[in-house]
Amino acid sequence: MTRNHTPKSLAVLLRARMHPDALPSPPPQLSPPPPSTDPDPAAPPAASVRHWLHAAASAASPAPATLDSFSDGYRSLDRVGRREVLRSLATDYDVPRARVRDLMRQYMSVASVAAAGGDGAEADEGKEGAGAALYRMERGLREALRPRYAGFLEAMNAQPGGLKLLAVLRADLLALLGEENAPALRALDSYLKEKLVTWLSPAALTLHRITWDDPASLLEKIVAYEVCGRFPVDFDLAVHPIRNLIDLKRRLGVGRRCFGYFHPAIPGEPLIFIEVALHKDMAASIQEVLWDEPPTPESEASCALFYSISSTQPGLSGINLGKFLLKRVIDMLRRDMPSVQIFATLSPIPGFMQWLRAKLASQIKLAETESQEGNSLEGASSTFRESILLSDEEKMIHNAIEQAHGKQGIELLQDILKTSQWVKSEKLSAALKSPLMRLCARYLAREKIRGKALDAVANFHLQNGAMIERINWMADQSEKGIQQSGGIMVNYLYRLENIEEYALSYSGKGLVHSSPTLSQYLEVTVTSV
Amino acid sequence: MTRNHTPKSLAVLLRARMHPDALPSPPPQLSPPPPSTDPDPAAPPAASVRHWLHAAASAASPAPATLDSFSDGYRSLDRVGRREVLRSLATDYDVPRARVRDLMRQYMSVASVAAAGGDGAEADEGKEGAGAALYRMERGLREALRPRYAGFLEAMNAQPGGLKLLAVLRADLLALLGEENAPALRALDSYLKEKLVTWLSPAALTLHRITWDDPASLLEKIVAYEVCGRFPVDFDLAVHPIRNLIDLKRRLGVGRRCFGYFHPAIPGEPLIFIEVALHKDMAASIQEVLWDEPPTPESEASCALFYSISSTQPGLSGINLGKFLLKRVIDMLRRDMPSVQIFATLSPIPGFMQWLRAKLASQIKLAETESQEGNSLEGASSTFRESILLSDEEKMIHNAIEQAHGKQGIELLQDILKTSQWVKSEKLSAALKSPLMRLCARYLAREKIRGKALDAVANFHLQNGAMIERINWMADQSEKGIQQSGGIMVNYLYRLENIEEYALSYSGKGLVHSSPTLSQYLEVTVTSV
Repeated sequence: MTRNHTPKSLAVLLRARMHPDALPSPPPQLSPPPPSTDPDPAAPPAASVRHWLHAAASAASPAPATLDSFSDGYRSLDRVGRREVLRSLATDYDVPRARVRDLMRQYMSVASVAAAGGDGAEADEGKEGAGAALYRMERGLREALRPRYAGFLEAMNAQPGGLKLLAVLRADLLALLGEENAPALRALDSYLKEKLVTWLSPAALTLHRITWDDPASLLEKIVAYEVCGRFPVDFDLAVHPIRNLIDLKRRLGVGRRCFGYFHPAIPGEPLIFIEVALHKDMAASIQEVLWDEPPTPESEASCALFYSISSTQPGLSGINLGKFLLKRVIDMLRRDMPSVQIFATLSPIPGFMQWLRAKLASQIKLAETESQEGNSLEGASSTFRESILLSDEEKMIHNAIEQAHGKQGIELLQDILKTSQWVKSEKLSAALKSPLMRLCARYLAREKIRGKALDAVANFHLQNGAMIERINWMADQSEKGIQQSGGIMVNYLYRLENIEEYALSYSGKGLVHSSPTLSQYLEVTVTSV
Repeated sequence: MTRNHTPKSLAVLLRARMHPDALPSPPPQLSPPPPSTDPDPAAPPAASVRHWLHAAASAASPAPATLDSFSDGYRSLDRVGRREVLRSLATDYDVPRARVRDLMRQYMSVASVAAAGGDGAEADEGKEGAGAALYRMERGLREALRPRYAGFLEAMNAQPGGLKLLAVLRADLLALLGEENAPALRALDSYLKEKLVTWLSPAALTLHRITWDDPASLLEKIVAYEVCGRFPVDFDLAVHPIRNLIDLKRRLGVGRRCFGYFHPAIPGEPLIFIEVALHKDMAASIQEVLWDEPPTPESEASCALFYSISSTQPGLSGINLGKFLLKRVIDMLRRDMPSVQIFATLSPIPGFMQWLRAKLASQIKLAETESQEGNSLEGASSTFRESILLSDEEKMIHNAIEQAHGKQGIELLQDILKTSQWVKSEKLSAALKSPLMRLCARYLAREKIRGKALDAVANFHLQNGAMIERINWMADQSEKGIQQSGGIMVNYLYRLENIEEYALSYSGKGLVHSSPTLSQYLEVTVTSV
C-alpha cells in the first residue's frame, strides 16, 4: 500500500505523455566531433558520445561545439546506448571523495581551533582571521561536494537547446531508475532534479493564455499532448487529427480558457498547461464540462473549473510547476473576471480502487487465517482486522446479489469490483454507492504515506493549498474512470483567503482540510464487523 | 597597481548607473505585517524588516505575504537601515557550523570504513550499501553547508518582483563591502552572486531587438540608462529629455541596431543592452560612429561595430551577461545580414592613464632614490627600474617643451599628462603619439593581474574570445577620453572561427591574442634609460 514515488505519481497526475524526443527517433547519425579530439570513427556511437561527455565534463568551461556534439550524439543513441552514457555520467564524474576528505580534515582543525578560542561563541564572530578562513573553506567544501558532472550540467543548461536535452536525459534516467536502482544513478537524478528546480524557478517562467490565434506549431503541440490524451482516451472518441483540432478549438473558445507556462529556453511549447471551464456552479461530473455551447454566458460565470492539467516534459516530473501555474492563473482570472468567485477542480482519484482492492484482499486473508486458526488466536490477528463495511452496507450488497454463496460482504465487494459490469446494474450501483463514497472520502482525507495524502492528485492539490470540497458519484463513467475510482471524481476547492494557510498546515503538519459535506462521510463510525 | 575587483571594474566597463531602486526613494512606509506575527508598531523600520526577515528565513517555505512585507519594508529603508538588515542577513542566518561539524564526523567514519574495505578502490563502486550511505551523507552535507539564508534567497527569487529586489539588495551589499570588508558580508555576496549566475543563466534570457516600435516605457528606460550616460556626458551635450529621445531614435534607426537581454522576472526592462553601428569598415574614432545619416547603405555594410554595452542593474555586476549577449547578437546579425563579415568593437581603455601615471610616479621615485643614495646602491634599486621611454621618444618630448628645466623625459611626461591641455598643442600631440600608442599596446596586451588583462574592458572582451585588433590615436577627444586613455580607443575583433579557441586559451593560460599591427608596438625593444 505505498504511493508511487513522487516523479511517477506526478506523471500520473499530470497525464504526462512520453515526448517524441525521449525516444530514439532519428537513426544513429553523428555530427563531426571537434577536430582536435576525434574519437575513433569505427567506435560504436555510445563510445563517441562518452568521448564528447569526457571532453565536456573535464573542461573548466566546455566548448559549445563539444556540448552540441554530445547533444546530437545522445539523441541519436538507442535505449541501450543512452543507458551506457547515463551510467558513465553518474559514476565517472562523481563527487571527488579523496579531495572532500582532505578538505574536511583541514576544516575540522580550523573549526575546532576557532571554536576553542571563542569561549563557546561561534567562531566567525569577532575574529576576522579565523572567520574568513572558515568561510573560504566552506565555499571550497561546497564546491568539492558537487559531483564532477555539475559543471557539465550547468554548461549544458546555458547552451541553446540544452535545457530540453537535460529534460530528455532525465526522462531516460527515470526510466532506467525504474529498473536499476543504483545509488550513483539515484544521486545523479536527485542532483539534476535539484538543478532543474532552480533553473525552472517561477521567476524564469512566463504565463501565456493560449488561444486560437496562437501559431499552429504551438497548437499542434497542445493537440499532441492533451487532445490525444484524456478526453478521446477516456471517452473512446476516435483519435482523428481533424476531430482533435475541432476539439481543441472548442477548448480554446468561449466559456473556456487555456493557460500555458513557458520557459525562454524551450520556446513555442508550454512546459505545463491548464484548462479551465467557466460555469455557474462547481461541476459534479465530466459530462457537465463537455459542452459544445457554453451553458453560462461568460459574464455570468461564477466558477472557474480546472478540468485538466498537463505536463509536457516527462523529464520534469517531480518538479511542481503546477503550483505556481495555478496561483498565477487564479490571479489572472480574478483580475479579468471579477464575477468569478469560486476556483475549483474536477479531478480524478487515480489511486482509490487500487487502495480499496488491496485493503479488501488483506482483510479477506486475515479473516481466513482467523477462521483456520480458530478462536484461540482470534485476539492476535484481529489487531490488524478492521471493519470495511457498515452492517447496513453489507446488507444492501447481500440483497443486491442473487447468489451470495454464503460469502461475507467484503468478499462479495471484491468479486463485484473485479470488472466494471456493476455500473450497468442499477441494483448493484445503488448498493455500492454508500460504501464506495464513504470509503473514497476516507481514502482521500485519511490515508497517508509519509505524512502526506496517499493519493497523488490529492497530495498535489492539498500541497498547493486546496481543500477537499465534494466527491461526486458517477462523475466519470468511462471504463478508466470506473476502474480507477469507481467512477467517483472529486472537487478540490481553492479558497483564496485560505490558500497559504492550508498549504502551510498541510506541508507542516499533514493537515487535510475538507468541507462539512465530506466530513459527514468521515464521521460515520463502523461498529460491527 | 591593482585592477579594481571584478564587480567594480565591470561596472566601469558596462557603464552601469545606480538604478533609482537602489536608492531609498519612497519615504518609510510599511505595508501591514502578517496578522499573527505583528512586530511592535513603535519599533524602528529596520527592526520591522528584520522581523519579516526572521519570519521568512526561519520558515521551511516562507509565505509570499511575508516576503512581500520584507520587500516593501526593505525598499522603504534608508541606507543605515538597509545596512543593518544586510548585516543581520549575513550573520544571523549563516552556515550552521555545529551541524556541519557533526555531519563531517559521521561522513569521515563512513568514508574511511568504505575506503578501507575497498582495497584502494573508490568506496561507491560495487558496494551498494556504503555507496548509498555516502551519497546520502554528501547530499546532507551539501545541504548543511548552505548558509541558512539560502532558502530565503531562493524563495525571494521565486516571488514576483523578487529577482529585482535581490539585485537591489546586492547593489547595496556591494556598496557596503566597499566600506566594511567583513568575512560574513563577503560570503553573503559570494553566495548571492553564485545564485544570481544560476538564475540568470542564458537559457532564461531572451534576446530582443529594441526598435522605435517598442513600448515607450521600455524606450524611456533605455534613455535613462544610456542616452543620459555615455554620449551626452562624453561630449557635453545638454541633458535634455527631447534631445535624448531624438538621439535614441537615431540609435534605433537605419544603419544601427540595439539588442537587449530580457529576463521574464524583470519585464519591460533589459538587464543589459548592446548598440551596433553598421559600417563599411571598422571605425577608428567615436566621430565615425556619430553620424546622422548612415555613411553606408545597410546592404553594403560589412562591419558590425559594437559601440556601447550597458548594464542596467548595478546589483548584477560581476555576472557576465555580455558574453552570451554578444554571441547571440553575432549569430542574429550573421543570419539577417550575410554581407556583414567583421564583428568588432570600438572600446574605451578605462585604466590606461591611471596605470601610466602610477608607473611614471614610481619610476621617478626610484630615480630620485638612486641619485640621493649615490652610485653605491645603484645595483639594488635599479632592479626595479625600467625604461618607460625610448631615446627617440625622450628626444621628441624634450624638443616639444620650451622650458625643460633639466628634467628627465619621464618627469616631463608626468607634467604634461597632469591636464588635458597637451591635446591642444600640435607639437605636444605629435611628440606624445609614439610613446602613448606604444605604452598603450603594452598596457592592453601585457599588463596582467592574476593572469588576466589589467584593463577591465580588455579582460571582458578577451574572455569572450576577442582579439586586440587595432589601437586608434585621437579616437575619443572628449575630456573624459583624454583623461582615461589619452584619447586612444581600441578595436577588439571577434573572429568567428577563433572565438572559442581564443576564449579558451585566454581563460586557461592568460594568452592575449593580438593583430600583427599591434605586435609591432610590442616588439620595440627599450635599450637605453
